[in-house]
Amino acid sequence: MADAARAAAAAGLTGLVITPGYDLRYLVGSRAQTFERLTALVLPASGDPTIVVPRLELASLQESAVPELGVTVRDWVDGEDPYSLVAQALGGGPVSVAVTDAMPALHLLPLADVLGVVPVLATEVLRTMRMVKDPAEVDALRKAGAAIDRVHARVPEFLVPGRTEADVAADIAEAIVAEGHSEVAFIIVGSGPHGADPHHECSDRELRAGDIVVVDIGGPYEPGYNSDSTRTYSLGEPDPEVARRYAVLQRAQRAAVDAVRPGVTAEQIDAAARDVLAAEGLAEAFVHRTGHGIGLSVHEEPYIVAGNSLPLQEGMAFSVEPGVYFPGQWGARIEDIVIVTADGALSVNNRPHELVVVPVS
Amino acid sequence: MADAARAAAAAGLTGLVITPGYDLRYLVGSRAQTFERLTALVLPASGDPTIVVPRLELASLQESAVPELGVTVRDWVDGEDPYSLVAQALGGGPVSVAVTDAMPALHLLPLADVLGVVPVLATEVLRTMRMVKDPAEVDALRKAGAAIDRVHARVPEFLVPGRTEADVAADIAEAIVAEGHSEVAFIIVGSGPHGADPHHECSDRELRAGDIVVVDIGGPYEPGYNSDSTRTYSLGEPDPEVARRYAVLQRAQRAAVDAVRPGVTAEQIDAAARDVLAAEGLAEAFVHRTGHGIGLSVHEEPYIVAGNSLPLQEGMAFSVEPGVYFPGQWGARIEDIVIVTADGALSVNNRPHELVVVPVS
Repeated sequence: MADAARAAAAAGLTGLVITPGYDLRYLVGSRAQTFERLTALVLPASGDPTIVVPRLELASLQESAVPELGVTVRDWVDGEDPYSLVAQALGGGPVSVAVTDAMPALHLLPLADVLGVVPVLATEVLRTMRMVKDPAEVDALRKAGAAIDRVHARVPEFLVPGRTEADVAADIAEAIVAEGHSEVAFIIVGSGPHGADPHHECSDRELRAGDIVVVDIGGPYEPGYNSDSTRTYSLGEPDPEVARRYAVLQRAQRAAVDAVRPGVTAEQIDAAARDVLAAEGLAEAFVHRTGHGIGLSVHEEPYIVAGNSLPLQEGMAFSVEPGVYFPGQWGARIEDIVIVTADGALSVNNRPHELVVVPVS
Repeated sequence: MADAARAAAAAGLTGLVITPGYDLRYLVGSRAQTFERLTALVLPASGDPTIVVPRLELASLQESAVPELGVTVRDWVDGEDPYSLVAQALGGGPVSVAVTDAMPALHLLPLADVLGVVPVLATEVLRTMRMVKDPAEVDALRKAGAAIDRVHARVPEFLVPGRTEADVAADIAEAIVAEGHSEVAFIIVGSGPHGADPHHECSDRELRAGDIVVVDIGGPYEPGYNSDSTRTYSLGEPDPEVARRYAVLQRAQRAAVDAVRPGVTAEQIDAAARDVLAAEGLAEAFVHRTGHGIGLSVHEEPYIVAGNSLPLQEGMAFSVEPGVYFPGQWGARIEDIVIVTADGALSVNNRPHELVVVPVS
C-alpha cells in the first residue's frame, strides 16, 4: 500500500479509491466482492489508509489481512452515506482521485457526485506494480504453470472419438483440481470447426477421428496466481495442409517468445508472431492479439497487441498465444505463459509445442 | 427493449448503454460477461438498437437471443476504438446517456471521455420494469421458492452434532441442485456464535447439541430467477430465553409480511418488523435492513430499508428477513420471498416459520 500511495502522489493525485476486485486483493489480500453496499479502500497520497465497509461485512474483513496492515476501518450501516465517508477519508478538501478499473457505475457515479470530480482510472498508477511480478509472484506463476502442464500431459487420454467436448471438459476439470489448482477458471475444448472460434468453450459435439482439437485451460493456484496454457491435438495423423499451417504457427509462437527481452515493446512481440504468419499467407487467419498479462487475474496488463508501445520490464508475465482459425473447418493455438528476465523469456509452460497426435483405432 | 427505449425517451435521455450483467440479461437474454474488451448494447431513445461486440465474442452472441431481436451487431477488432462505435450508435450528436449500474470504471471512464459527458445510472429508467415482475417472472420465482423449500425440508437430516458447517453446506449444495436449481448461489450455515454474523458463510466449526443454526440458502432456477430463504434450526430444545427472543422475531417477520400491499412504502415494511423487535428491547439486535428485491439478481431493487419511500406496486418481489444477532452467542433469521399482489403478500416460501427443533441423541 505504501508503494501505491507514493505512486499516487507522484501522479499528482489526492488518492486512490479501490473497491473489491484484483486491485484490492493485490493491495491488502482481501477477496471481498462487490455488492450494492460500498466497500472501498481509500489510499490518500499522504496520510493513513482507511477501509470503508458495511458493518455487515466487518466480520469477514477481520478474517483477512486488513487488521494487521494498520488500516483504519470505518464501518457504516444502512442509511448512512458511504460516499461521504470516502470523501472524509481523502481529507475532505478538493480532490483528484483514481479508482480501480473494477469499480461499477453503481458506486462510481455517486462517488463522482459527492467528490464533485470525475475520477480517472488507477490503472496507470498501479499498472507497473501489478505488471512487474516479484520473486514470490514469479514462483507462484511457475507452480501454476507446472500444474497445468501436468494436466496437458493427461489430455490425450481424455480425447477419444465418440466422447463429447463436454465429457472431455469434465475430465479436465477434475484434473485441474487434482493437479493442485484451487479451482477451474476456464476450459476450452474446441474440436473440428469449433476450434475456429477462439472463444468457444465446450459443447455436446462428439469428437471424431481426424479432428483437430484446441485445448485452452487454466485456473488459480494458491495464493491465487493463474495458469493458462493451450495445446492443440490431432485425433490421428493430420492432413499435410493442416501440418504445414501448424508448423507456421509453431514458428510464429517461437518467434514471439524469442523476441521477449527487457526494452522490447509489447507490440513488437505481437508483430514477431504476426510477421511469421503473414509471410506464409496466414495473416487473416490470426484474428486476435498475441497475448495478455497474467497474475491474480487471468487477463491483465500488459496486453501484447498492436498499438501497445509499452516497453517490457523484467518480471512482467504474459501469454504468448498466436492462433490460426479457418471458419467452418478447424483452428489451432499454442500458448505459454512467459516471464521477462534479463536473459529473455522464461517460460512457465514446458510441454512440447508440436501438434500432439493422439492415436485413434 | 422497446419499453426501455421509451422509458429513456421519457427521461429525456439520448439513450442507454448496457454492458454485460443483469440488465443486459433482462433486456436481451444474453449471459455475456464483462471482460477488458467492451461489449455494450446501445439503445437509442429513438432509432434502432445496436450491440457493440468484440469479433472474438461474436460466435457466442449469435447463440443468444440477439440475432432474433433485430439488433444491429457492430463487431470490432483489437486496435479499433469501441467507445466511438457506441457514440456512433447513439446518433453521433451531443448526448445524455444512462448506463447500467454494472458497467465497470474500465469502460465507463473511457466512454465518458469519448461522449464528452458523464453518464447517469440507468437504474431509474429500468428500475420499474425490472422491479415489477410479469406473470412469467412470478411463476419462475414461485418455482424457485418451492425448490428451496424442498431443500429446507431436508436440512434437519444434515444437522448432526460432530459434523462441520462445511459438511452441512456440501450436503445442502447437492440438494439445491438435486431439487432443480441450475446452480448454487450462496449457502450460509451459521452455527452457535457464527449465527450472530449475518454474512458468515460456513466454516470448519463442528455442530454441537444446543446450537442454534441459521441456514440461508438459494440459487437460480431456469431461466435464471433466484430463490433465497432462511430458516433457523435448534439442535435439541432451545433454552427458554432463546425461545422467547425467537418468538419475537417470528412476530416481527409476520408483521412485515402482513404489512405488504400496493401503496405501502418499502420503509414502512422495514419499520413493521423493526417496531415489533424494538417493543421487546431487541432493536439493537437487528443490525440490517429487512429485505431486498430479487429476480435475475439475488439482490436488486426494491430495498426494504429505512429511507426508501418507494411505494410498493403489484408484481414487486422481495425478501422479508428480519434477524436478531447476539455477538459471541447466537443469531436467528427468518426469510421468505414475497410478491406484492392486490390482496397483500404472496409468499413463494411456505415452510413453517417456527424454530425447527432437530432432535439430538
